[in-house]
Amino acid sequence: MCGIFGIAYDGNCLDKVGRGLFHLQHRGQKSVGLAFSCNGKPVQNSVLPGLVRPNDSIFQLSEGEQAIGHVSLKEPQPFFAHTKMGEIAMSFSGNIRNSQEIRENFLKIGCAFTSHTDVELIARLIGQHEDPVEGIKGMAERIRGAFSLVLITEKGVYAARDPFGFRPLIIGKDIRGCAVASESPPLVENEMKIIRDVRPGEIILIEKQGFTTVGLIPSPRSAHCAFEWAYIARYDSVIDGVPVYEARHNLGAALARNDNIEVDLVSPVPMSGTGHAVGYHQASGIPYGYVFFYNRYSDRSYTPLDQKDRDRIAAEKLSLIEGMAQGKRIALLDDSIVRGTQMRRQVARLREAGAKEIHIRVASPPLVAPCAYGISTRTYKELIARNHPVEEIRKLLGADTLRYNSVDEFVSAIGIPAEKLCLSCWTDEYPV
Amino acid sequence: MCGIFGIAYDGNCLDKVGRGLFHLQHRGQKSVGLAFSCNGKPVQNSVLPGLVRPNDSIFQLSEGEQAIGHVSLKEPQPFFAHTKMGEIAMSFSGNIRNSQEIRENFLKIGCAFTSHTDVELIARLIGQHEDPVEGIKGMAERIRGAFSLVLITEKGVYAARDPFGFRPLIIGKDIRGCAVASESPPLVENEMKIIRDVRPGEIILIEKQGFTTVGLIPSPRSAHCAFEWAYIARYDSVIDGVPVYEARHNLGAALARNDNIEVDLVSPVPMSGTGHAVGYHQASGIPYGYVFFYNRYSDRSYTPLDQKDRDRIAAEKLSLIEGMAQGKRIALLDDSIVRGTQMRRQVARLREAGAKEIHIRVASPPLVAPCAYGISTRTYKELIARNHPVEEIRKLLGADTLRYNSVDEFVSAIGIPAEKLCLSCWTDEYPV
Amino acid sequence: MCGIFGIAYDGNCLDKVGRGLFHLQHRGQKSVGLAFSCNGKPVQNSVLPGLVRPNDSIFQLSEGEQAIGHVSLKEPQPFFAHTKMGEIAMSFSGNIRNSQEIRENFLKIGCAFTSHTDVELIARLIGQHEDPVEGIKGMAERIRGAFSLVLITEKGVYAARDPFGFRPLIIGKDIRGCAVASESPPLVENEMKIIRDVRPGEIILIEKQGFTTVGLIPSPRSAHCAFEWAYIARYDSVIDGVPVYEARHNLGAALARNDNIEVDLVSPVPMSGTGHAVGYHQASGIPYGYVFFYNRYSDRSYTPLDQKDRDRIAAEKLSLIEGMAQGKRIALLDDSIVRGTQMRRQVARLREAGAKEIHIRVASPPLVAPCAYGISTRTYKELIARNHPVEEIRKLLGADTLRYNSVDEFVSAIGIPAEKLCLSCWTDEYPV
Amino acid sequence: MCGIFGIAYDGNCLDKVGRGLFHLQHRGQKSVGLAFSCNGKPVQNSVLPGLVRPNDSIFQLSEGEQAIGHVSLKEPQPFFAHTKMGEIAMSFSGNIRNSQEIRENFLKIGCAFTSHTDVELIARLIGQHEDPVEGIKGMAERIRGAFSLVLITEKGVYAARDPFGFRPLIIGKDIRGCAVASESPPLVENEMKIIRDVRPGEIILIEKQGFTTVGLIPSPRSAHCAFEWAYIARYDSVIDGVPVYEARHNLGAALARNDNIEVDLVSPVPMSGTGHAVGYHQASGIPYGYVFFYNRYSDRSYTPLDQKDRDRIAAEKLSLIEGMAQGKRIALLDDSIVRGTQMRRQVARLREAGAKEIHIRVASPPLVAPCAYGISTRTYKELIARNHPVEEIRKLLGADTLRYNSVDEFVSAIGIPAEKLCLSCWTDEYPV
Repeated sequence: MCGIFGIAYDGNCLDKVGRGLFHLQHRGQKSVGLAFSCNGKPVQNSVLPGLVRPNDSIFQLSEGEQAIGHVSLKEPQPFFAHTKMGEIAMSFSGNIRNSQEIRENFLKIGCAFTSHTDVELIARLIGQHEDPVEGIKGMAERIRGAFSLVLITEKGVYAARDPFGFRPLIIGKDIRGCAVASESPPLVENEMKIIRDVRPGEIILIEKQGFTTVGLIPSPRSAHCAFEWAYIARYDSVIDGVPVYEARHNLGAALARNDNIEVDLVSPVPMSGTGHAVGYHQASGIPYGYVFFYNRYSDRSYTPLDQKDRDRIAAEKLSLIEGMAQGKRIALLDDSIVRGTQMRRQVARLREAGAKEIHIRVASPPLVAPCAYGISTRTYKELIARNHPVEEIRKLLGADTLRYNSVDEFVSAIGIPAEKLCLSCWTDEYPV
Repeated sequence: MCGIFGIAYDGNCLDKVGRGLFHLQHRGQKSVGLAFSCNGKPVQNSVLPGLVRPNDSIFQLSEGEQAIGHVSLKEPQPFFAHTKMGEIAMSFSGNIRNSQEIRENFLKIGCAFTSHTDVELIARLIGQHEDPVEGIKGMAERIRGAFSLVLITEKGVYAARDPFGFRPLIIGKDIRGCAVASESPPLVENEMKIIRDVRPGEIILIEKQGFTTVGLIPSPRSAHCAFEWAYIARYDSVIDGVPVYEARHNLGAALARNDNIEVDLVSPVPMSGTGHAVGYHQASGIPYGYVFFYNRYSDRSYTPLDQKDRDRIAAEKLSLIEGMAQGKRIALLDDSIVRGTQMRRQVARLREAGAKEIHIRVASPPLVAPCAYGISTRTYKELIARNHPVEEIRKLLGADTLRYNSVDEFVSAIGIPAEKLCLSCWTDEYPV
Repeated sequence: MCGIFGIAYDGNCLDKVGRGLFHLQHRGQKSVGLAFSCNGKPVQNSVLPGLVRPNDSIFQLSEGEQAIGHVSLKEPQPFFAHTKMGEIAMSFSGNIRNSQEIRENFLKIGCAFTSHTDVELIARLIGQHEDPVEGIKGMAERIRGAFSLVLITEKGVYAARDPFGFRPLIIGKDIRGCAVASESPPLVENEMKIIRDVRPGEIILIEKQGFTTVGLIPSPRSAHCAFEWAYIARYDSVIDGVPVYEARHNLGAALARNDNIEVDLVSPVPMSGTGHAVGYHQASGIPYGYVFFYNRYSDRSYTPLDQKDRDRIAAEKLSLIEGMAQGKRIALLDDSIVRGTQMRRQVARLREAGAKEIHIRVASPPLVAPCAYGISTRTYKELIARNHPVEEIRKLLGADTLRYNSVDEFVSAIGIPAEKLCLSCWTDEYPV
Repeated sequence: MCGIFGIAYDGNCLDKVGRGLFHLQHRGQKSVGLAFSCNGKPVQNSVLPGLVRPNDSIFQLSEGEQAIGHVSLKEPQPFFAHTKMGEIAMSFSGNIRNSQEIRENFLKIGCAFTSHTDVELIARLIGQHEDPVEGIKGMAERIRGAFSLVLITEKGVYAARDPFGFRPLIIGKDIRGCAVASESPPLVENEMKIIRDVRPGEIILIEKQGFTTVGLIPSPRSAHCAFEWAYIARYDSVIDGVPVYEARHNLGAALARNDNIEVDLVSPVPMSGTGHAVGYHQASGIPYGYVFFYNRYSDRSYTPLDQKDRDRIAAEKLSLIEGMAQGKRIALLDDSIVRGTQMRRQVARLREAGAKEIHIRVASPPLVAPCAYGISTRTYKELIARNHPVEEIRKLLGADTLRYNSVDEFVSAIGIPAEKLCLSCWTDEYPV
C-alpha cells in the first residue's frame, strides 16, 4: 500500500502534486517524495519523512511542468537514477515476488545496489534500456509481481500498470494538463475530469495535451486487488469503474440479507467499517449509530515500535461511547479480521459497558493467506482464520454471533467477475 | 476553546498528562504545555508548538508527581511565575472581559507584563496573594469573564471554575491519584473513574488521595456554555452530567419532530454534524448515509494565513461523494452556521453532483452574537444570522429548505434549564 | 560576560545587528537575541539558542530602524516587557549583587517574576517609571552591581553604563546612524567611526542623527574591569581608550623585564596567552613559536555537562606539537591561572614530549577572589592562588619556574590608574 | 580535500570515529558520515549535514567494532552499496579524472547510478569483484586519478592509497585496535601510536590486532601532493614522515634567506600564513606579531552562495588591528596566492591603517595550474600567476615588494625529492 501521482502540465504544477499526494495520504504516512523536471532539464528529486504538507516549500518551487510524487508506508520514493536513458526518477505501488533472483542477476554482471528496495530493482530494470517504453516492457518481462508505476525521464512522464492490473491507476485531465493517480480523489480535488483507468498491461505517455498509449504488455487476465474496495481505497474513490462506497454498501447489504438477528443498532468499527455499516443499515432498516468514537489525531501522534505498541495505539484510536452501548443489541461491522486482537478487545469493552448482544459482521471473507502483492507483511501464522473455523473465532472474540461474507457474496457485491479479481487473500490461489 | 489537565499522583504521572492532553487535542492544536513538580521541588515548565505527542520526551521525564498541562489554540500555556506564594504555573480555559482595566492597575503600581495574554493577567492576580486559595478568590473578585483553571504551586495542584461555570471541568480518580480535565475522555482514557464536575465557583485541592473543596467563590447562577454540547466537546464526553452524544441526538431528533420533508437520505456535514444527523435519522427513520468524505489528515497539514486560506482549507477537508448525492433528496445536518461561506459552497457542490433537493437542518439556533467567553473571535458583522432572516439565509445558501432549532428546542434537547446555561450567542444577552 | 549591541539607523539595520553580534560572539555562545522596532511600532523580540548566524532570517526582516541585540553565556536576552512606559526590550552585560532584596520588594507589592534572571529585575525596575531616563536612573539607585545596558522603547534606543563603568560600552557612528556595543570591533566591522566610550553613569539616547547624553547617574569613581584587557575582550578591541593588544603586549613585556631565564622559545597557551607571548617575545628578543595547536572548531562541537566534561573538552582544544617541544626550554605564557587544572595537564604533556624546561609566565596577578560583577561563577574555594603561595603552585603545576605580574606591574601595563580600575579579583577589595 | 578515518577495535569504537573526524574537520565542513559494522553484521550507514559533533547520537550507538567515517566538502560519504561482495560502504579523498568514460561503460552494461559522484563510481568499480582486495586492484586499473580510501565490508575494514600516494593516509595502533586517517592528529588524539603512512599502491586490512598488507598496486613513482605541507594539513600533522610545522617553518626560512628588506614586523595572514611567518621570523630574527585578528567563529556562521559572498566572508574572517599596522614596515606571510582578491583587499586595509611598507612573502611558488587531484575547483583562468608575471602581480596587489619561493626552494623546504612529489599546480606537469 502506497500512493503514486504523475502529471504533465502547461505551467508549473508542483502544487497539484502536493494536493494530489495529500488526498492519497491514507495509502502511506511514512514519507513523501517528489521528482520533477521542466522540459528536458535535469530531474530533481526530494524525499521528506512524515506526512504531506501541501504548502511545504518543495511544492512551491517555481518550475516543474512534469512531475511524479509518492506517499510511502515503507520505502522512500521516488528513486532517482542516472541510466542508459539519462536521468530518471520512478515511483511505484505494488511489490516484486522474484526480487532475489533479479538482484542476483544484477550482481553477477557487476552492478551493485544502494538499497534493498523493490523500487531500486524496478528502476534498474527499466534503466537497462535506452527507451522508456522498452524499459518498462523489459522490466515487466523479468519480474513476477504487481506494479502501478510513474516514471519521469528526459522524454516526459510515463505511467504503467502490470498486466494483471493488481493495483489501481486512474487517468484524469483538464484543458491544461493530464495526470494519473493511485485513486480518483487526487484527480477530482485537482478539478480534473476522470477519463478512465490505465488498463492492465498498458503503458501511457502523459503530456500536457493528454495521454497516449505507447505500449502494451501482454495481459493474460485481470486480477484487480479486491481489498481496495473492501478496505484500502478512500470511501469516495472510484476504482476500475466501481465506486468504493457502492461496493462497501453492497458488502454491508449482503451481510444484512437473510440475517435473522434482532438488534437495536448497526454500528461500525470506525473508520474501516463505516461504509459496510451504512450498507447493512440501509438494507436492513435497523437504526445506525456509533458505539466508538474515532480520534482523528491518533494517526501520527505516536511512533510505534513493536506489535505490543501497535496494539495499544490501535486501541487508543477508539474511545468507547458507554451510554450508546449500554443495554443495546449491536450489529458491529468491520471490513476484515486479521489477527483478531483488536476486535477481541473492543468486544470486551462493549460488554463491560453493558452491551446486551454483540453480533460481528465482517465484509470480506475469512483471511486465509498473506498478500503477495504489496498490501501488508502478514504471515500465514498470524491469520486467525487460517487457524480456526468461524465458530471458534466467534468464541475467541467473545461475540454472540459472527458472520463473514462468502467469497461469492464478496465478489458479487463488488460487481466485477471473480476471474478479473485477485482474491488470493481469501482463496490462497494466486492469479499468476 | 482550549483544554486543561491537572493531576496529583502516587508516582510519576507525566505520561498520564500526555495521554490526557492527547484526548483534549480537538480543543487546541497550536501548542502543548506541561508544568510539573515533585513534592515541593521547583516547578518545571515546558511549552512546545504543535500537536500533542504522548511519547515526546517531555512526557517521559523521570519525576513529576504533581502536574498540569494545556493544549492551546492561541496563547502558549502554562504560564510560569515566581510570586508571593513561590513558584507557580497556571493554565486556563476561558477569557477575561475587563483585561484592559486590570492591566492598567498593574502598570500603575509599577508591575510590568511579559506578554499580552489573559493567562499572564490571571497568574499575576493569583500571585498577589500568599495562599493559593486566597489568590484564586482574589482573582475572581477582580475579573469579569470565564475561567476553568489548573494551578500548580509548591503546596500542590489546585483547580477552580468561575462562579458561572462557563467552561467545563471534570474530576476523576483512581486508587493512586486524582485528576481534573476540561472533558471526561482524558480521565476515562487514563482509566480513572469520573467523580463529578467541579461546581461553579468551587476551588479544589488535588492530592494523590483525592480532592478537597478548599474554597467557594459566591455563584449567583450557573451559565454553562451550551455550545459545548452542540459543537465544542468530543462526541464521547459527558459534561455537567449530560452526555454530549445524547444532547446531539436530541438536537437532531428535535429537528426531525414535525419536519414534513420527504427525503431519501439524512447526511451530516462531517465531523461537526455527525451526532445531529444520527439523531435526526433515528427519530425520523429516514436512512443515514454520507455525501461528504472527511479527510482526517487535513487538520494540521496546512498553516493557514488568512480567511481566504482558511476557507479553501475548510473546503478541502470535505470531498464530495458524487454518486451518493446524484438524484437524491437530502437532509443535510450541521451544528451551526457562522458566516455561511462553507455551507454555500457545499450546497453548490451537491447541486453540481445532481442532488435533487437539499434541506439544511441546523442543530443550534441562529447565531446572533459573538461569544464573550472564549470560544472564538467572531464579530457581529460576520454572523449571517445577525444580518439576514432565515428565508434570506436559505436563499443565500441555495438550499430548498432551511430549519434551525428554536432556543427553546435547543435548551430542551440539552436537558439543562435555560437559567443554568449561557445562551448569549443566540440571545445576545450575557449572564453577568 | 556577555555582549550587547544597540543601533538607530536611517533605514533597516537588522543586518548590522547580526554583523555586530557576530563580532561579539566570544562574549557569549549560548544564545543570541534581537529586539527591534520601527519608529514607534510595537517592539518585536526573538531569542534563538546557539551561535550568531548573521544571515539567519531574524536578521533579514524587512523593517527595523531601531534595534538592540545580545549574545549570552547564561540568560537568554533581550527581555521583553509591557510596562508603564509601554513596550520595552532590554539587554545588559554585568550582574546585580542585591537581587534577592529587590526581588522581595517586588513580591511584597504583589508583582511576580517570570524568571530568576537579573535582566528581568533590571527591566522591571526601569519599567516602574514612565520615562526611560527616569527609569534607568531609578533602577541605578536601587541596585548594587554592574551594568552596561541597551534599552529599546517606543521613544527610541537608550544605552547606559553603571556609575563605576565596570563593563565596557563604546559608541560608533556613520552618516546614516549611530550604535553602541560592548566592544569596538562590532562598530568597526559595520564601518562606523568610533566616537568614544559611554562614560560611567552616563545615559544616552541613540538616534539616527547621533547620540545625546540624556541623563547622568552620579559616579563616585571609575572601576573598569581590568580583566577585559587581560582576557575577556578581543585582541583587536579598544576599551576606554586603551587598545587590548597594547595592554597584552605590555603585560608580556613586564614579565620579560628583569626575567633572568634562558629559554629557546616563547610560546603562548592559545588563544588566551597569544598577546602576552608576543609582548614577552618582542621585549626579550627570544624567538616566538607554538608548542600547542588550537582547534578552532572545538568551541561549540560539544555540549559539556559537568566540570569533568569541561576539563576534558578544554584539553581537547589544544593539540600538542610534539616536535616543537622536544628538547626545548620554553617560556609558556598565559593570561591567568584559575584552578590550575588545565595548566598542570599541559605542563605534563610538554614534559612527556621531551621539553627540557618549562617556565610559566602569567600576565595577571594571582587570582584571590571571585568576581562580583559578572565575569564568572568562580568561588574562593577553587582558586588555586587563594589557597597556595606561588612556590607551591609552581610545584603543583610541575613547572621549572613560575612568575606572575604584580598588581603594580599589571596596572602599569594597562596604563590606567589603579583608582580607576576594578582589581577586586586580585586584591579582594571591592570598589563599592 | 576531505578527510577519512577507518578503524577496527576490540569493543565499540564509534566514539573514536567521532573524535577522529573532529580532528579532520578542517578538511571538510559540509557533511559528516559514518558507516559501521560489528563482526559480520549488516553495514549501517549515516550521513549528516554540517560539522562533526563528537557527542552526537550517531557516535554513541552501542555497537560498532569496525567503522569508517568521512568529513566532506562536497559529496556526502560514505557510500553504501549492496554488491557482489555483499554490503559495503566506502569513503575516499581524492578525485577521478576519467569518470566520464567509466560511467559510460557502466551504463553500457545496463548499470545505472544514483548520483553523479566519484565516490559512487569507485564503489561500483570495487563492487564488481567478490573479493575486496581484487575489487580495489580492479578499480585502480580502471581509473586515472587520486584516492586514499577506507572500505568496510562483511570481511572487515580495508584501506588503500593510489599508486602515486597523492593524498595522505596514516596508520595508528594501540593495544586494542588499529586505525587509519587522512592525517596524524585523529590518531594521536585517540591516543594511538603512529605506525607509518600507507605506502603508495598499498592495500591493507585493518583488524583489531593490527594491520596486514593484503595487496599492492604497482607504483611507478610517488607523487605526494606538496600542498598538504604548505596549506591543507593541520599545523600539528606529520605526513609521509615530514612534520607539517617543520615544512612551513622551512618555507618561511627559505623566504627569509637572502631577503634584503628592512622591516619592523613579520606577520602572517592568519590562519594559513602562521607557520610560514614563524619560520621567517625565527630565521631572520625580525620580531613576530599580528596585524590581523582571525575570528574563529567565522568558519561556519555563513552559508555562502556565490564568489562575491565568499569574498566578503573571507574578508570578514580577518579584522585589522589598526594600531599594530600604523607606521610599520611589515613582512606579510601567506601560503599561496590564488586569485589575489583577498590579498589585494588586505594590503589596502593595511595602507589605510598607515602601514609604511608592505612586503608580501609567499611560501609556495606561483600557482599556474589547477589541481587535477581533488583539492579545489580552480580554473586556469582565475589564477593570477597564470596571467601575470610577479612584478605585475605586485602592482595589482599594491605591495612594496613580493617574493615567492621558487619550486626548488619549495621542494627543498619540504625535504622530499621533487620526483616523489606532485608539483603540478606550480609546474603544470602532471605525474601520470
